[in-house]
Amino acid sequence: MTKITTGASVSLDGFIAGPAESGFEHLFQWYENGDVEFKTTSSSIAINVTEASAEIMREIVATTGCFVVGRHLFDITNGWGGKHTLGIPCVVLTHSVPDGWEQDGEWMSFCTGTLEDAIELAKTKANGKNVGLNGGTIASQALDLGLLDEVELDLVPVILGGGTPFFGRLGNGPFVLEGPIKSIQGDRVTHLRYRVVKA
Amino acid sequence: MTKITTGASVSLDGFIAGPAESGFEHLFQWYENGDVEFKTTSSSIAINVTEASAEIMREIVATTGCFVVGRHLFDITNGWGGKHTLGIPCVVLTHSVPDGWEQDGEWMSFCTGTLEDAIELAKTKANGKNVGLNGGTIASQALDLGLLDEVELDLVPVILGGGTPFFGRLGNGPFVLEGPIKSIQGDRVTHLRYRVVKA
Repeated sequence: MTKITTGASVSLDGFIAGPAESGFEHLFQWYENGDVEFKTTSSSIAINVTEASAEIMREIVATTGCFVVGRHLFDITNGWGGKHTLGIPCVVLTHSVPDGWEQDGEWMSFCTGTLEDAIELAKTKANGKNVGLNGGTIASQALDLGLLDEVELDLVPVILGGGTPFFGRLGNGPFVLEGPIKSIQGDRVTHLRYRVVKA
Repeated sequence: MTKITTGASVSLDGFIAGPAESGFEHLFQWYENGDVEFKTTSSSIAINVTEASAEIMREIVATTGCFVVGRHLFDITNGWGGKHTLGIPCVVLTHSVPDGWEQDGEWMSFCTGTLEDAIELAKTKANGKNVGLNGGTIASQALDLGLLDEVELDLVPVILGGGTPFFGRLGNGPFVLEGPIKSIQGDRVTHLRYRVVKA
């Protein structure tokens, strides 16, 4: 069954970015402090993690059939050059299809409807695998709408003191979760997976 | 050597209380979902935790010689009736000694100076054991001043979506920590201890 999942590297105080987009050297240190090379579709992006973190990443890639991403993330990565770094199809939630892109490409599709529409479209592309939501704004909206099934925290031992929270502007909280249903210790990261308890 | 420590039950989004002082039934569920009675000095406060959580609590009580607490916490607990529930002496940081209390009692002392003064006073009372800071405002100030050595997160699987952050108003972040140097899974709580890396 397709699950709707999300995950992020978060600080101990719950931020996915520090003040003024700072802190990434801490939040993503675990992407480069191991000796297991994690293959991406981009020759310019090297991910070298510990075996423990690689195990988690392999599992996520193997079980995720499609991402739903926000337009902001699409823009700042320039659409990952056409194909997501992890080689997984993406549905981009956007007000309009960006110039030069087909609405329904092999690796990038654009949904100008609601988040529910984007998730439904992603499900059709996921071939029974999971739909992964990226990043915090979309994940928060899905949680608030009762659509989110699992949350993966890559908990990083840093206190940022402010910035962008992973989960923000929730109208329908609190949300109770179960778990961690999976817990793996990496180097400068603790991978914790939780299941959202549906109301 | 005396360490300066702090700890709190926090939600996955970093809050020690939800909006309008809500969420405690989630944050403190692990205080009452086990079959190990944790003895307090108060007959009216029953703490029943799992053996895993009891192990952590016993260790904290055994290694903590004195607490530094804020006046707000002192007031809302009415000074724990004269003696902290865990039987540990307290230094209360306050602008003035409250009516009816001696400035330097056996279980409650009052410091009208700075946080550094309160911590120094607590060290003299801790007999070589640790000084524990309670709650978030004092812990954040100590972190910001470079005085905090260890942080214990009792991470609870709930997303509160807002409220009182454990760490707030930090002027000198980000703060890098090491660990978890201890990690224990309870029931509806993950106990994670981190060491603050001093600049």
